[in-house]
Amino acid sequence: MTVELICVGTELLLGNIVNTNAAFISEKCAMLGLSMYYQSVVGDNPGRLEHLLRMAKERSDVIILSGGLGPTQDDLTKETAAEVMGKKLVEDARARNEIQEFMAKRGRGITENNWKQALVPEGCIVLYNSNGTAPGIIMEDGDSRMILLPGPPNELVPMFEEQVYPYLRSLQPEIICSKMVKLCGIGESSAETKILDLISEQKNPTVAPYAKTGEVHLRITAKAEDEKTAFAMIEPVEEILKQRFGDCIFTDDPQVTLEMAVAELLKKHCLTVATAESCTGGLLAGRLINVPGISGQLQEGYITYSNEAKEKLLGVSHKTLETYGAVSPETAAEMAEGGAKAAGADVCIAVTGIAGPEGGTEEKPVGLVYLGCCLRGKVYTEKNLYSGSRSKIREYSVASALTFLRRVILEELEG
Amino acid sequence: MTVELICVGTELLLGNIVNTNAAFISEKCAMLGLSMYYQSVVGDNPGRLEHLLRMAKERSDVIILSGGLGPTQDDLTKETAAEVMGKKLVEDARARNEIQEFMAKRGRGITENNWKQALVPEGCIVLYNSNGTAPGIIMEDGDSRMILLPGPPNELVPMFEEQVYPYLRSLQPEIICSKMVKLCGIGESSAETKILDLISEQKNPTVAPYAKTGEVHLRITAKAEDEKTAFAMIEPVEEILKQRFGDCIFTDDPQVTLEMAVAELLKKHCLTVATAESCTGGLLAGRLINVPGISGQLQEGYITYSNEAKEKLLGVSHKTLETYGAVSPETAAEMAEGGAKAAGADVCIAVTGIAGPEGGTEEKPVGLVYLGCCLRGKVYTEKNLYSGSRSKIREYSVASALTFLRRVILEELEG
Repeated sequence: MTVELICVGTELLLGNIVNTNAAFISEKCAMLGLSMYYQSVVGDNPGRLEHLLRMAKERSDVIILSGGLGPTQDDLTKETAAEVMGKKLVEDARARNEIQEFMAKRGRGITENNWKQALVPEGCIVLYNSNGTAPGIIMEDGDSRMILLPGPPNELVPMFEEQVYPYLRSLQPEIICSKMVKLCGIGESSAETKILDLISEQKNPTVAPYAKTGEVHLRITAKAEDEKTAFAMIEPVEEILKQRFGDCIFTDDPQVTLEMAVAELLKKHCLTVATAESCTGGLLAGRLINVPGISGQLQEGYITYSNEAKEKLLGVSHKTLETYGAVSPETAAEMAEGGAKAAGADVCIAVTGIAGPEGGTEEKPVGLVYLGCCLRGKVYTEKNLYSGSRSKIREYSVASALTFLRRVILEELEG
Repeated sequence: MTVELICVGTELLLGNIVNTNAAFISEKCAMLGLSMYYQSVVGDNPGRLEHLLRMAKERSDVIILSGGLGPTQDDLTKETAAEVMGKKLVEDARARNEIQEFMAKRGRGITENNWKQALVPEGCIVLYNSNGTAPGIIMEDGDSRMILLPGPPNELVPMFEEQVYPYLRSLQPEIICSKMVKLCGIGESSAETKILDLISEQKNPTVAPYAKTGEVHLRITAKAEDEKTAFAMIEPVEEILKQRFGDCIFTDDPQVTLEMAVAELLKKHCLTVATAESCTGGLLAGRLINVPGISGQLQEGYITYSNEAKEKLLGVSHKTLETYGAVSPETAAEMAEGGAKAAGADVCIAVTGIAGPEGGTEEKPVGLVYLGCCLRGKVYTEKNLYSGSRSKIREYSVASALTFLRRVILEELEG
């Protein structure tokens, strides 16, 4: 079955916003085993949208539209799509009620425009919207289907996950199941090289790598007549990945982030952690504190951007800074040791590096980053060299600090 | 003149990556006054690409393509586009040389495939690529133009800015100039309401708002026969914006970020700053340290996630925490005061709030965030309430902390 995506919105054509909806919907469709050959963006222009819809209806089984369901005169996606599908618009009582409740809850007045959002094509499936006033719509016409979704991601994403995904899944003669294996501490090309055989000979199940900053995600997808069979097909492939990647795998749960995996590991070993950051300047602690409930593990962190702060807050020795410089394994080690002591924490992870664009030398170039980790008095260091902008270097440093912290705990306490 | 964008890449159709190139190119084209009615994404499939290119050539004056210029067999954008434009491929000597140099510099061997990238359509303009091996291409055929760009943003963005932008500009009979005015401390809809008259009556110059987290950017664009005339048309509109938005404007330089504006203000008044963060947990310091050369202003920061850390590192009184709680104006004030003292800084900015998803009560809901700012002993606080996910609440908190810091300095030292 083929699916085609049409995003409606002048703000996309003007570049005011990045089209994250397209990536989200495409990834979900890929997970469902649907083939997507075309994505388009058009403005809020009924003529151009109609032309595109008629063409899409010819070449694709399912058309997913996002945007243009708002209350203003400009928003014409629903009217145009209904016309192409030959459906009349009628008022939906529940949608009308929900709009009323939604606006009342927020203390906003309802204008005549708002009722436009309660109109739906005759005989359609209405996707009620708990995060906004525009209901989504599924229209069917023989083998042809159109799915209309509101543009704002905070409305589109839950509506897709809760209502559209199960609907699309029910259309598929076969069940599609997938599993995500997430890796850290390995580059994208090394990861790909290790599974070239799996990628090239694959038909069912398939393995697809997705590169993220400091991480590689591998999705295994299988088609079968039922879920049990699909997961039975996935299992041996997952086993192969586990053998090949070992400890580089930090989770097989798509919801779990690297910081969540690290937090879980800290919790498992009843470890408290502190951070001591120079070039990342708080971003590492900031990412760990992304994890709800981290307060049992992380109580405090130090941002020591100057040498004085490294001495004062972390007790790095003046001589070390003078002899080896702030960006050195010696300083990273003393930062980690001092941070653990100052915070009274079981483990401290430290980062010091040159994020650029200035400050690099031949010997210590921009992108040189040292990590230090002190676990119950034992100190480890790691050297990294990144390229890219200041912010890229800092982002990568945070990812490798989490990876390094994880590896030290694994080797020391589970090795 | 109309422009159409076609992004080529199966990784986009699979949702492996977000299409940031589309937003970048669209914004630049809007700045140039080019009308974009269509954007499309197709996979590395020559049949579908050719079909789309022929349609685009009929309806648009300039077609910009990104992606599919790589060295592998799958990459067929150049071959397909050249065929549609009726051009033969020939080897470009300089492109061949540059590929050789690029690979040698990185110590990588050259495979036979790589030479494919030195082939260009006869009579085209070659856009040499200093960040990769795929040269970009401009093909002209009467009034029809195709511009081919490499897919990786770190290659596409500089190539567009340095070579494509001036080319497109030269095609325009009129000069298009624009100015960006960036606001903080005002919501998108309030900002829009204040300039509804300018937006609705506008023809030339135009004003367009772009919403960012905690910021609103207003772009004024004018068309004229020369630059001087265009800027003369922009000036009175900028004056109106300055009158209406006053101190909310933090810069009129598109390159300047909010943290850069704040860093500049600190420098101007010779102020050193410290940070004291609870719910943002380092993200505020992390954002300030985005600014190269901030080390003169920011030496250290404190992440005090637990109450104990707030007492120990910032000297918040136990009684305050007990009586008012960690999320209160009283605690925010003491965090700021104590942070300034501990760091020996002129000013300290503090954040304490409930980022959720757990931990909210009726009285103190998720999203409640207090800011404290202590400037040379004088303390200010601010209350904010945000909705959204944990990470959204934290992002907004960082933006308002920067805005609050800026406002306190302005009122205290420039008011």
